[in-house]
Amino acid sequence: MTHLPDQGPQPGVHDLGYARLDTDRLERTGDAEVVYGAGKTPSQVVELLQTLHATHPGSAVLATRLTVEAQEAVTAALPDAVVDPVGRTAVLGEPGVLRGTVAVVAAGTSDAPVAAEAATTARVFGAEVDVITDVGVAGLHRVLGVRERLDAADCLIVVAGMEGALPSVVGGLVGVPLVAVPTSVGYGASFGGLAALLGMLNSCAPGVSVVNIDNGFGAGVFAARVARRSAPRERKDA
Amino acid sequence: MTHLPDQGPQPGVHDLGYARLDTDRLERTGDAEVVYGAGKTPSQVVELLQTLHATHPGSAVLATRLTVEAQEAVTAALPDAVVDPVGRTAVLGEPGVLRGTVAVVAAGTSDAPVAAEAATTARVFGAEVDVITDVGVAGLHRVLGVRERLDAADCLIVVAGMEGALPSVVGGLVGVPLVAVPTSVGYGASFGGLAALLGMLNSCAPGVSVVNIDNGFGAGVFAARVARRSAPRERKDA
Amino acid sequence: MTHLPDQGPQPGVHDLGYARLDTDRLERTGDAEVVYGAGKTPSQVVELLQTLHATHPGSAVLATRLTVEAQEAVTAALPDAVVDPVGRTAVLGEPGVLRGTVAVVAAGTSDAPVAAEAATTARVFGAEVDVITDVGVAGLHRVLGVRERLDAADCLIVVAGMEGALPSVVGGLVGVPLVAVPTSVGYGASFGGLAALLGMLNSCAPGVSVVNIDNGFGAGVFAARVARRSAPRERKDA
Amino acid sequence: MTHLPDQGPQPGVHDLGYARLDTDRLERTGDAEVVYGAGKTPSQVVELLQTLHATHPGSAVLATRLTVEAQEAVTAALPDAVVDPVGRTAVLGEPGVLRGTVAVVAAGTSDAPVAAEAATTARVFGAEVDVITDVGVAGLHRVLGVRERLDAADCLIVVAGMEGALPSVVGGLVGVPLVAVPTSVGYGASFGGLAALLGMLNSCAPGVSVVNIDNGFGAGVFAARVARRSAPRERKDA
Amino acid sequence: MTHLPDQGPQPGVHDLGYARLDTDRLERTGDAEVVYGAGKTPSQVVELLQTLHATHPGSAVLATRLTVEAQEAVTAALPDAVVDPVGRTAVLGEPGVLRGTVAVVAAGTSDAPVAAEAATTARVFGAEVDVITDVGVAGLHRVLGVRERLDAADCLIVVAGMEGALPSVVGGLVGVPLVAVPTSVGYGASFGGLAALLGMLNSCAPGVSVVNIDNGFGAGVFAARVARRSAPRERKDA
Amino acid sequence: MTHLPDQGPQPGVHDLGYARLDTDRLERTGDAEVVYGAGKTPSQVVELLQTLHATHPGSAVLATRLTVEAQEAVTAALPDAVVDPVGRTAVLGEPGVLRGTVAVVAAGTSDAPVAAEAATTARVFGAEVDVITDVGVAGLHRVLGVRERLDAADCLIVVAGMEGALPSVVGGLVGVPLVAVPTSVGYGASFGGLAALLGMLNSCAPGVSVVNIDNGFGAGVFAARVARRSAPRERKDA
Amino acid sequence: MTHLPDQGPQPGVHDLGYARLDTDRLERTGDAEVVYGAGKTPSQVVELLQTLHATHPGSAVLATRLTVEAQEAVTAALPDAVVDPVGRTAVLGEPGVLRGTVAVVAAGTSDAPVAAEAATTARVFGAEVDVITDVGVAGLHRVLGVRERLDAADCLIVVAGMEGALPSVVGGLVGVPLVAVPTSVGYGASFGGLAALLGMLNSCAPGVSVVNIDNGFGAGVFAARVARRSAPRERKDA
Amino acid sequence: MTHLPDQGPQPGVHDLGYARLDTDRLERTGDAEVVYGAGKTPSQVVELLQTLHATHPGSAVLATRLTVEAQEAVTAALPDAVVDPVGRTAVLGEPGVLRGTVAVVAAGTSDAPVAAEAATTARVFGAEVDVITDVGVAGLHRVLGVRERLDAADCLIVVAGMEGALPSVVGGLVGVPLVAVPTSVGYGASFGGLAALLGMLNSCAPGVSVVNIDNGFGAGVFAARVARRSAPRERKDA
Repeated sequence: MTHLPDQGPQPGVHDLGYARLDTDRLERTGDAEVVYGAGKTPSQVVELLQTLHATHPGSAVLATRLTVEAQEAVTAALPDAVVDPVGRTAVLGEPGVLRGTVAVVAAGTSDAPVAAEAATTARVFGAEVDVITDVGVAGLHRVLGVRERLDAADCLIVVAGMEGALPSVVGGLVGVPLVAVPTSVGYGASFGGLAALLGMLNSCAPGVSVVNIDNGFGAGVFAARVARRSAPRERKDA
Repeated sequence: MTHLPDQGPQPGVHDLGYARLDTDRLERTGDAEVVYGAGKTPSQVVELLQTLHATHPGSAVLATRLTVEAQEAVTAALPDAVVDPVGRTAVLGEPGVLRGTVAVVAAGTSDAPVAAEAATTARVFGAEVDVITDVGVAGLHRVLGVRERLDAADCLIVVAGMEGALPSVVGGLVGVPLVAVPTSVGYGASFGGLAALLGMLNSCAPGVSVVNIDNGFGAGVFAARVARRSAPRERKDA
Repeated sequence: MTHLPDQGPQPGVHDLGYARLDTDRLERTGDAEVVYGAGKTPSQVVELLQTLHATHPGSAVLATRLTVEAQEAVTAALPDAVVDPVGRTAVLGEPGVLRGTVAVVAAGTSDAPVAAEAATTARVFGAEVDVITDVGVAGLHRVLGVRERLDAADCLIVVAGMEGALPSVVGGLVGVPLVAVPTSVGYGASFGGLAALLGMLNSCAPGVSVVNIDNGFGAGVFAARVARRSAPRERKDA
Repeated sequence: MTHLPDQGPQPGVHDLGYARLDTDRLERTGDAEVVYGAGKTPSQVVELLQTLHATHPGSAVLATRLTVEAQEAVTAALPDAVVDPVGRTAVLGEPGVLRGTVAVVAAGTSDAPVAAEAATTARVFGAEVDVITDVGVAGLHRVLGVRERLDAADCLIVVAGMEGALPSVVGGLVGVPLVAVPTSVGYGASFGGLAALLGMLNSCAPGVSVVNIDNGFGAGVFAARVARRSAPRERKDA
Repeated sequence: MTHLPDQGPQPGVHDLGYARLDTDRLERTGDAEVVYGAGKTPSQVVELLQTLHATHPGSAVLATRLTVEAQEAVTAALPDAVVDPVGRTAVLGEPGVLRGTVAVVAAGTSDAPVAAEAATTARVFGAEVDVITDVGVAGLHRVLGVRERLDAADCLIVVAGMEGALPSVVGGLVGVPLVAVPTSVGYGASFGGLAALLGMLNSCAPGVSVVNIDNGFGAGVFAARVARRSAPRERKDA
Repeated sequence: MTHLPDQGPQPGVHDLGYARLDTDRLERTGDAEVVYGAGKTPSQVVELLQTLHATHPGSAVLATRLTVEAQEAVTAALPDAVVDPVGRTAVLGEPGVLRGTVAVVAAGTSDAPVAAEAATTARVFGAEVDVITDVGVAGLHRVLGVRERLDAADCLIVVAGMEGALPSVVGGLVGVPLVAVPTSVGYGASFGGLAALLGMLNSCAPGVSVVNIDNGFGAGVFAARVARRSAPRERKDA
Repeated sequence: MTHLPDQGPQPGVHDLGYARLDTDRLERTGDAEVVYGAGKTPSQVVELLQTLHATHPGSAVLATRLTVEAQEAVTAALPDAVVDPVGRTAVLGEPGVLRGTVAVVAAGTSDAPVAAEAATTARVFGAEVDVITDVGVAGLHRVLGVRERLDAADCLIVVAGMEGALPSVVGGLVGVPLVAVPTSVGYGASFGGLAALLGMLNSCAPGVSVVNIDNGFGAGVFAARVARRSAPRERKDA
Repeated sequence: MTHLPDQGPQPGVHDLGYARLDTDRLERTGDAEVVYGAGKTPSQVVELLQTLHATHPGSAVLATRLTVEAQEAVTAALPDAVVDPVGRTAVLGEPGVLRGTVAVVAAGTSDAPVAAEAATTARVFGAEVDVITDVGVAGLHRVLGVRERLDAADCLIVVAGMEGALPSVVGGLVGVPLVAVPTSVGYGASFGGLAALLGMLNSCAPGVSVVNIDNGFGAGVFAARVARRSAPRERKDA
């Protein structure tokens, strides 16, 4: 009695029964749809990746938030796919010419999964990536030591949990567009990442924007779109 | 008994007693410091604008969140300043050559002050601005009718209160980097803009980033930095 | 020492020991009581369905929120029951003549369980159902493509998680009464469906009402009551 | 420096400079746009009412959330308008033939403004209205005494602050579709209406839907749409 | 390296190593200490019950929030103990002469564990108990049918989850002191019992007081203290 | 266009147009209705007090939450009324024979208005009152010095803001039924009394129940009902 | 009818009618009581300061949170008092020999009132004070430039609003005990200082403790107690 | 495709691949880095402890929040390590000369793990520790009986869950600097320790500072830094 009547074919939609892919998205926005793995079975993930790859043979296609089971299914069924167990992603195909650079900066070791998801996403969406880890504000010499690399990027992704202070420090050092990603790392009054989220939204450094808690994917899409449009740089922005 | 001992002159700091301007910021980040008017007296706003203008004669300098009294004081003391009563801003000096375009898109008439602050900020920070107002999602023909202008921008600022749905709709139409600004427009369960903020953070459109509630200034800085770095475009992003 | 003294028979109450069925509800409100499966054992679900069916032989009776174990117990004990593993419901008996049409509209594939519960409930409570899935606002062509079906319904149920923007878009397209159901689909700052709930309560489209997070059942009851009272329609509302 | 470039005329939009009216809404949804008075000047309210009235001469047009100043301006400029200081509304024109009945039920005297806004809205949107006041659950004989009138309505609007229990009691008495409106009446842990809102969303009576805190307007639109579509009734719903 | 130095014997304290019983409490407040089972091992529960029983041989001693393992250990080690698997309590010894009557009223079947804990506690603390179940407000005839029993009690405990409306209805029917217990029964916007808690704190019926979510124990202590002090009643309170 | 049709006379209801008094309440619950002054005009307060006094000539009738204007109007129109500017109450008539004793205990001087409302209410509802002020837990000698008076009461009302710790300390000293009233005294993370409310709900002392923030009235009703039923005491409770 | 019976003299208490001073506190804790000005009349503030000064002639006594009216009344009545309009404090008498040093570090100019209250309090409670202002993390050179002064203190008070990141940065630079004070400076998602409070509680720098929002007084007491006990230092802590 | 490019050696950083130790911290702040065990594998914990021990052979090094598996791995691999299963810590090496005394005071037996973590941390960071358990405010004689030990300490750590009232009581008894640790002990409206946290932040006792929920480590670091700097004491603080 699930009452799912025929809907007939619709232009710009590929119907797999359990999902209706938006095949018009590449034309409309410049980027193909992505497989969001949460709540999908391993075999659905495999079929969706295959379908997207067949529809967009010239691009890399991406699946995120994969369970260990889904990662194993992809590895078994799609030997060309690159699976990252840290970021819980799979990529099929090559992203083409990369343009511009996204620097992914992470405060602590526990933020690694979110940073890896952001890095992989930014590359699939067409940008070079420079990853800088474990530069928490409690040891400022670590972030001050990478100031050059921060300044050389076209867009920054700054990942931090707990109090989420790193974007304010980085945003005060350089004038590069900065997307902050709060993570759910912490306990007690971190309230699942809320403390870091509020901290980043209230950053005293101008030019900081924020995405959802643990949303490395969203930050990666955003930063790649900024980076790949950027004009080649000499030095300091005008 | 306020115990404010001498601190002596520090490089990169201009001390006015009630405030210590970060005069190194232009060198460090490419943008001068800004006068945040909240909690400052009219005469402090005037003196700070004058000081910043004297320090950075070749740029436009900006004051935000001005009370009516502060706006009147600026108009009286600084006849060259451009004061906007809607966005509650004042600008002194010219921003130089503008590069790239920021489109500021607002959902309703009540969002006008935040949109105006964002637009003025983006121009002071070096980008052309295209303002598109009153395109709420309850009348989709209005936003669909401006799709070309959205697609032509280098960065989008989308301003909305209440449920904050406009960024999801715009973000699904074009692939331009999009900064969403939730506003405190609404009542009851909008909880001062919280509903719009949460909506935007959870947007199902990829590539949406968010700033604080009513933070038109922050969105303007961010979007201008993206736009002015952008390479000139032909058509659709690759 | 549980001190549960006899309460004696009460009119309009059928006492099963662990539950006291409100057998007067059909007479009072036009609809029989329903088995809410959460926290009940499989055998209690079976016995309650049987008892309700015996009391109301001319209607369909419904059980919701069934565990897999309860679904299996119902299938084994009541071969005439229709069990839906997606919506986690079981139905025993036939709903009689259906009047009016409820359209159930879901934003994403993850919203399917809530949409299925709403659809089954609306049918048990006496309305025809039209299900429209995967029409999220990030691909507007999908919802614009079904405008006719939306307009033809007597009541709409719109199901969405994450930012919950779909009711605002649908509510701006047609003037049909619209019940919105926020779902707990999302992560981080969705706070278990709170973001979608607040978004829907603040919808800028007039005439949107809301039920609890994941409450497909409540929306189904409400929409069926609206639809089955509706006068037959020609076209556009007067 | 507000940068508001020409947008040119757009079909379905009437541009007044400070607002762009959605003149296509009547055609699209069956109901004209409404003047939301919050944040508008008295003269803007007058002009918007006049414009809407001129565009839709055969309907009643409505303005809500009017300040005392706006109410006085409307009375002075539009002698045909009916202004209600309790509900803070103004109506210009006649709603045409009313169909179906909406019963507006309010728990306490402090809920009167929200109930009045709901009643006026429902009538402007085309339904007969029956108002029942001061029937709080702490004196059950009052609500039990009006059971007949509740049952005779095609849609119920139930308005309550504090703990918001009235919809559960009414929803258990009759099977009429019920829209609950939480109000901000209360103090302390009512948190501006949050307690009533949560109570109504969790109602144990099936078929209760909810609108935003103090949103009498939204409930009125919704209920009128339900009532005016209803088939004429004999007795008890089938 | 846990550094737990000797503290030496203290009057009014019985030291078991892992806990220091307040043996002075009976003298000070009229009631002995109770074993709060959460976080304690089965053998600790057994030893604590034995110790309390030995210290207070003339009273009943109580353990609450027992796991299934702890219940089994008590049953095995203390054959005289009465274990209630619904309320998760164990009682050792007899409470002596009971005075006054506490009526425990529960809205739904899912509230049974909290109601059982309250009933057992009230009896251990010295009051007669009358339990009335499944009288939710969506079927008012059930609660109206027990008005006599409500009025005959010396103190009422009213247990409800979801919207928590029952205390308002009961508190409007009789003038008996009423302690309300919100339960965590519900989902979505019940937020673990918060909706019921806020509803009860904002009750429009005068004379309703509230305890923590699911705190049947606290309500039982409070109500027994009220009931056992009450003068014998004839009819209606003066 | 307020649509307030005649409702006809209803038994147990006295209709004043702007309010419908529950004149059956005294018969039903043992206590007359009370004038809640918030949101009422001074002349309404006067008329309501007069009406209640005429209906219940043998009792004291109470008005709470009176503005300064309403207090002055009562003093002018009803010379027999006793007006308390601290507790913002007015009382007309005499409460009859007082039975039992309520002790009102307040933590700090800022809690005085809530304590005064509680004390006046308890007396109007028929109990003797003993007020003990300024016994905050940061100076324990103050509360320890009044232990005898606490123990002599039949019910305690404990009023505290900030962290709300006083009920836990008092509840550990004596076994008298204790109603805690959190107040909105505090700032910052007191969140308008939320901190005190949560503290009291989580009290480690058994037998503490709680009313809404600043709800001295509710505590007074509850405590008077407990006290006036109490049997005369010798010493320690059994 | 305020029922405030005589309480008789109590040792360690000085009764002024509207307040009962804890005159034993100096003996018990080493520090005299303080006048918390919020909610007190100007004449009460003057009398309380005089009384405390008379009781403790050898110490400085402090009043905080004074309105402008109270500040003027103190200046007029107590010419020896030192009134600070920024920190809203008044001090009467001399604090005696100061021991140890408290450094008060403030992020922005808007934090000045809280910093001034903390500085004055620390001095009244017996410590030398070094104030360092406007060293927000968005311009790190400012805080790095004062590292020596931070390291020389015996206790640090770090005051910041918005995201509250400064304590994490300072706490990573030096090992001095650090008390963080969140301020209500900010807007939107700062939620009255909640963002800064949560940020500080989740600081990744070890050894950061936190007081209530805007609680400069509490931080001053705490830090002075730490500083005045400290042994004289040579260099780096062992 | 994790893109983790070489970062090259950086001074003050020891790179283990999965973590980059801040080896400069001891020089900078006086204390070595600590192993935060949450989210780390047992073998990582072992290697990190070994590495820290090798870098700082003259100190004790600490690991916190160890799973049972990590505790077993440490015991097996590092026989010199002292593992505490209650506080879930491991210590390798000796802390050197201890200076000053930290008293750790816990309200209930369920707070033992947090108290043990605080005690172990304080000792590793160089202070003597005195542990006082089970002195909840519901039995005041227990805390009054240890007043001498409280007064003899150089810094107090007060650990409590539920309403978190103990710091207010202790802070009113003695003038020793006091760090409060809220714990997640409790249920219902304790909201995972939020009630205790808010209670402690709003303490009416001056000089109370607070750390994150369950953060025994942070309190231990802070208190040890205070205690080890303290001058030797005779009696009462000056």
